[in-house]
Amino acid sequence: MTLALSGATRLYVIVGDPIAQVKSPGGVSAAFVARGNDAILVPVQVSVADLPAFLDVADRLKNLDGIVVTVPHKFTCFRRCASTTERARFIGAVNIMKRRPDGGWYGDMVDGVGFLSAVRAKGFEPVGKRALLVGAGGAGSAIARALIASGARELALHDADAARRDALIARLDTIGAGRVSVGSPDPGGFDFVANATPAGMQADDPLPIDIAKLQATTFVACVITIPAVTPLIGAARRRGCPTSTGTDMYQASEGSMLDFLLPSSPVSA
Amino acid sequence: MTLALSGATRLYVIVGDPIAQVKSPGGVSAAFVARGNDAILVPVQVSVADLPAFLDVADRLKNLDGIVVTVPHKFTCFRRCASTTERARFIGAVNIMKRRPDGGWYGDMVDGVGFLSAVRAKGFEPVGKRALLVGAGGAGSAIARALIASGARELALHDADAARRDALIARLDTIGAGRVSVGSPDPGGFDFVANATPAGMQADDPLPIDIAKLQATTFVACVITIPAVTPLIGAARRRGCPTSTGTDMYQASEGSMLDFLLPSSPVSA
Repeated sequence: MTLALSGATRLYVIVGDPIAQVKSPGGVSAAFVARGNDAILVPVQVSVADLPAFLDVADRLKNLDGIVVTVPHKFTCFRRCASTTERARFIGAVNIMKRRPDGGWYGDMVDGVGFLSAVRAKGFEPVGKRALLVGAGGAGSAIARALIASGARELALHDADAARRDALIARLDTIGAGRVSVGSPDPGGFDFVANATPAGMQADDPLPIDIAKLQATTFVACVITIPAVTPLIGAARRRGCPTSTGTDMYQASEGSMLDFLLPSSPVSA
Repeated sequence: MTLALSGATRLYVIVGDPIAQVKSPGGVSAAFVARGNDAILVPVQVSVADLPAFLDVADRLKNLDGIVVTVPHKFTCFRRCASTTERARFIGAVNIMKRRPDGGWYGDMVDGVGFLSAVRAKGFEPVGKRALLVGAGGAGSAIARALIASGARELALHDADAARRDALIARLDTIGAGRVSVGSPDPGGFDFVANATPAGMQADDPLPIDIAKLQATTFVACVITIPAVTPLIGAARRRGCPTSTGTDMYQASEGSMLDFLLPSSPVSA
């Protein structure tokens, strides 16, 4: 990327711990410049213990306009926002924060829309479709909400933790009444299957679904970025299924982050 | 500049208030890359009131390797260094801090050597020469020490504040005994004249020396960066004197900062 960096360059940081694995500083900084903004996104490695003091200072840094938030800070940062989008409140987490005119932070959570953008870019449109989602944690909640908000006809939710699954279903009912149900590892009959659990990060993890029942017409998505191709994605591809990986999701999220962070984009109270 | 920015890029910040005027982020970041380091220097605007809390957090940011310090933070940052160079202790100020292996900061003050680098680049070598310096504040102290350390034969010091002048002379005597004396605005007979006062920042400021007595063979330097050509520098040039400006000095300082900040350069306890 080509950058005219100076003291006048507006500052954005991405906070996480660890931080070396994140890719967004390069892409978002280049996009800032491409869109005519003298701004940069740089990585800052902040521990959980140090995050409150970091945010206290961030509140008062005069040239800091935005914060991108990654693991493990998304829930704590949500609580520091003066205002957020509805979808961030649904999850109780943010992955981007933008300075409000009064100095406080306006937060959003674009993991869900990033996931859907990646899926759509691979040719799958969820409107009117039947989806099975495995995993009702933070990523699963964001994806579930995005699927319902984008018009999926049915969303079956599976999670080994039945209480967590039912709690998410109850919350999803507030926006998608009647379309959300209890699912199982059986992907048979679904147009779309997504894994939002860590199953696949370790080589000997069991697959999150019953792969023998996966049809070749089903679109299969996964949130895991390492490995780039999880056993689930690999098995789905061998059956001929169209797929979208965690890396696809995070790359698509960058566009949503940028739209939110740009100085010209609106800030809501 | 071309930069492969990612989460693994090591972070350096320049702190000041205001900050928009600083130029070093671009030059230092480009030089980091040119020397094979995945590192970047970005501006952070921190007020005097917020600096202590900022430094508390900076102590614990795991990917922050160095801090460049500009007005008004050079003296406070000196007190936060676990160790410094002797020339920083002489001034009681730092303009660069580098992370020590134990997590504390090692500081240096390169304003004086930056000033001399610029002067040398313009063809003046102070060894054995007679110098008149106007101004015994922070910048003047750094320049005075650098002139003595580099072998000037005589340094005459002039400051409207006689007590400040005499205090600096007394401290300079510890390193350059017998070579430092009380000066006046009369530049006659000196090989080198430097202004380290703010005189010249405002259009109606009086000149810091008696310009009628300036010889065309005398080298004239000034620390002021805005305006780029002060009335003193302009008048000296009209008389045919070789000159060096504040901008020349700060550009030369960048090289010294970089040498200090590079990961491969030593850190002293």
